[in-house]
Amino acid sequence: MSEAYDRLAARFHRLAVLGEAEGLLWWDSAAMMPPGGGAARGDQLALLAGLAHEMLTAPELAADLQETEAAWSGSDAWRVANVQLMRHAARRAAAVPGALVEAGARANSACEKIWREARGRADYAAVLPHFTEVVRLAREQARALGEALGLTPYDALMDGFQQGIKAADVEPVFGRYERFLARALPEAEARAAGLAGPLGPAGPFPVPAQETFCRGLVERAGLSFTHARLDSSVHPFCGGSPTDIRITTRYDEKDVLRAVFAVLHETGHALYERNLPAAWARQPVGAAAGMAVHESQSLIVEMQACRTDAFLAWLGAGLSRVFASDPAFAPDNLGRLCRRVKRGFIRVDADELTYPAHVILRFRLERALIGGDLQPGDLPAAWNEGIAALLGIVPPDDGVGCLQDIHWYDGSFGYFPSYSLGAMAAAQFMEAARAALPGLEAALGAGDLSILTDWLAANVHARGSLFDYNELLQQVTGRPLDPAAFEAHLTRRYLC
Amino acid sequence: MSEAYDRLAARFHRLAVLGEAEGLLWWDSAAMMPPGGGAARGDQLALLAGLAHEMLTAPELAADLQETEAAWSGSDAWRVANVQLMRHAARRAAAVPGALVEAGARANSACEKIWREARGRADYAAVLPHFTEVVRLAREQARALGEALGLTPYDALMDGFQQGIKAADVEPVFGRYERFLARALPEAEARAAGLAGPLGPAGPFPVPAQETFCRGLVERAGLSFTHARLDSSVHPFCGGSPTDIRITTRYDEKDVLRAVFAVLHETGHALYERNLPAAWARQPVGAAAGMAVHESQSLIVEMQACRTDAFLAWLGAGLSRVFASDPAFAPDNLGRLCRRVKRGFIRVDADELTYPAHVILRFRLERALIGGDLQPGDLPAAWNEGIAALLGIVPPDDGVGCLQDIHWYDGSFGYFPSYSLGAMAAAQFMEAARAALPGLEAALGAGDLSILTDWLAANVHARGSLFDYNELLQQVTGRPLDPAAFEAHLTRRYLC
Repeated sequence: MSEAYDRLAARFHRLAVLGEAEGLLWWDSAAMMPPGGGAARGDQLALLAGLAHEMLTAPELAADLQETEAAWSGSDAWRVANVQLMRHAARRAAAVPGALVEAGARANSACEKIWREARGRADYAAVLPHFTEVVRLAREQARALGEALGLTPYDALMDGFQQGIKAADVEPVFGRYERFLARALPEAEARAAGLAGPLGPAGPFPVPAQETFCRGLVERAGLSFTHARLDSSVHPFCGGSPTDIRITTRYDEKDVLRAVFAVLHETGHALYERNLPAAWARQPVGAAAGMAVHESQSLIVEMQACRTDAFLAWLGAGLSRVFASDPAFAPDNLGRLCRRVKRGFIRVDADELTYPAHVILRFRLERALIGGDLQPGDLPAAWNEGIAALLGIVPPDDGVGCLQDIHWYDGSFGYFPSYSLGAMAAAQFMEAARAALPGLEAALGAGDLSILTDWLAANVHARGSLFDYNELLQQVTGRPLDPAAFEAHLTRRYLC
Repeated sequence: MSEAYDRLAARFHRLAVLGEAEGLLWWDSAAMMPPGGGAARGDQLALLAGLAHEMLTAPELAADLQETEAAWSGSDAWRVANVQLMRHAARRAAAVPGALVEAGARANSACEKIWREARGRADYAAVLPHFTEVVRLAREQARALGEALGLTPYDALMDGFQQGIKAADVEPVFGRYERFLARALPEAEARAAGLAGPLGPAGPFPVPAQETFCRGLVERAGLSFTHARLDSSVHPFCGGSPTDIRITTRYDEKDVLRAVFAVLHETGHALYERNLPAAWARQPVGAAAGMAVHESQSLIVEMQACRTDAFLAWLGAGLSRVFASDPAFAPDNLGRLCRRVKRGFIRVDADELTYPAHVILRFRLERALIGGDLQPGDLPAAWNEGIAALLGIVPPDDGVGCLQDIHWYDGSFGYFPSYSLGAMAAAQFMEAARAALPGLEAALGAGDLSILTDWLAANVHARGSLFDYNELLQQVTGRPLDPAAFEAHLTRRYLC
């Protein structure tokens, strides 16, 4: 390749290293930092983000990109994709004027602070003036991004989280799911009503023993603690970088299953990062392919693999060995417990079947907010109407309604679809894995996740960002997003 | 002030924020990071250091400094000092060519790796070729720094750790101590020989209980966990930044006193950082006044205050309450245990009386190494001769001799004097504190460190870097460094 390409690769390498530092500071703020460190940490993160933005918009980088593209030979698909992703990142960074980025960051931070207090009091009115400003600036940013990328404003925001799928692709998929759910949810409920309600675990489960158990699960799934840590935080997450992954969970002394499934979920994310192509480390094409793909990797572990009868039987036996034997861990009960379906107001507590309803609602509302078809003042009414139409329930107040998630009040729009696009991709990947791995079910019954995670490593993780969402599904499963796989999975699990 | 000054203040603010991020990454690498993260962390730290160097050597910064100095009015001592410290930092950063900095970093890192292995085998020959290169590059850097600062090469290195004192000031002080020790050490040993050897604690001391006890000590000393954490690491240290301080200790199940005194030491460092002048936060003049002053703040807590009979009586009673009652914690025994004097090879295990001998040896050897009067190949012989002259003992091998400390093999020269300059300043500060605080002894007897630490906050910490080492001693104690205070302290404690 050219010297210009080599300089680009070096620049993006620096950007990736800076991103690793940012990731560590972020992890620390959620898992370790004393409360008094928050203000300084905000400054530290803002500085690193600002430095990254400076690097990405430097005239020298633009010149090297132009020179590389002009002299393009394009024989190596990885390099071609790498340069395309560099161009894309540079275009996104240059699209929004610095003053607008800063105004957005200030408005988001102010609104988020108010929201933290107002959510508890279910006081949407207190948030509204700040949120109106957040939406105004988000619309402006989305418009600027959209113009630079040739996308609608909302698609430009989605693109920041996941390339390769647009709102116009998502809407029919979600519309189809809405119709499926209207039929499937009452049916699943009727089926569950015919069975005894599952017993919850008795506990208490001492936290140190839970942690030991969870660490064992992480290692069984193929993640070594040579390159990872497990800690606790209010909201479980996976952070860090490929050689130094930080996963967190939260421990509930009354219910060991909460920590267990959170850890399995985050381990799915962690393995993706860990198994990214080392030859392309710290280059755009060597990074994960987007947040929907990322979510598919956590959900294929947590939902597709670990809530099967086979794995749950192994898990229940393991839990009974480590903790007091508990009727809740009997195979039949554990299956019903881990696959309960229940309409509820709160997204993060939702089951696999109703979760997409929460996402569909948010996708439609945020698309309308950014598109200008919905005004912030009308959000609570639109929310309540929407959740009633999807799940037949009406929140008693905005605290369990439109105020429940941090995302919008923090200025994040376009992320929500990733959750369900991930769930659907996970089902499609699992179909392909089952076809490719005849021994999978038996392995899961022996608590062995590595057959699956090795297959994911080879077929998904090792591909980095060589393909976008739909291209990757095509490569791995032979077709782009096909919601039939997820429906078939749910039908087998909840309706048969 | 001028706009140029405001821009300078903003630039140094950014540098400080970047330094905070670096500090956190460093803490994490010592206290949290999985082993597999080391290589990536090295890159992250190198990148941040490189960015800081770029900022500090930017032509715009130099221009603003020149403009500010030219238009100087100089009415506010803090601002005057701030600009002087900015100039000093810029001069240091610009003095060493980038290629030499990089060559040094590479050589240091390579040598340190070899040293880690070679120390265990006491194999100086294996380190020698790498160490020769480290010394060669350190000499070159020291020469360049010295030229820029108008200092001798070795003084230029010392200046990087502590301003306001030079080798020519240190040598007579250390020479005097050498003579004092030649008389005091045999006398202290004879005195101890007349008493029963102290009993060690029986233990075991469960780590969680030790941690709880240590956290209580930290809070009693006046450090709140709103702005601090206590963790464990191989070598105790204090890191982080003034609103988010990270202290570490190491726990030994057989001896609770190891963790206790390490925590008291690090809490002294932490309080200094915590109580720096908030109005000058993130400005050069708002930072700590140097490593010798820093060490004085840890040693005044650990050694001057907490090894008094008064405090030890309170500590022994507290330990007996929390852990099984142990004859080792009886006041008389605890005093003898915590103030044992013993000639030994290892600096970090040395007692208060013999510790300076270890420092004097290193100071003289590193000064000769940098000055060209000692060649790396002659180091082991010079070491053994030196320690024999100072303490009358000869190391059986280089592992407990010239290979014991990481500092030189990592390219750090000029730091060692800080330890004893800190111990001497601590004695001088304590004299002043005793004169100012008639209730101090009674407070220590009640386990109350806050009378002392409040006084330090007002008289030392709040002054940031307004004064250098000798100026600060002058301000607080009425005279510059006066080794008589430390000798008087040691005489009272070990010879009366």
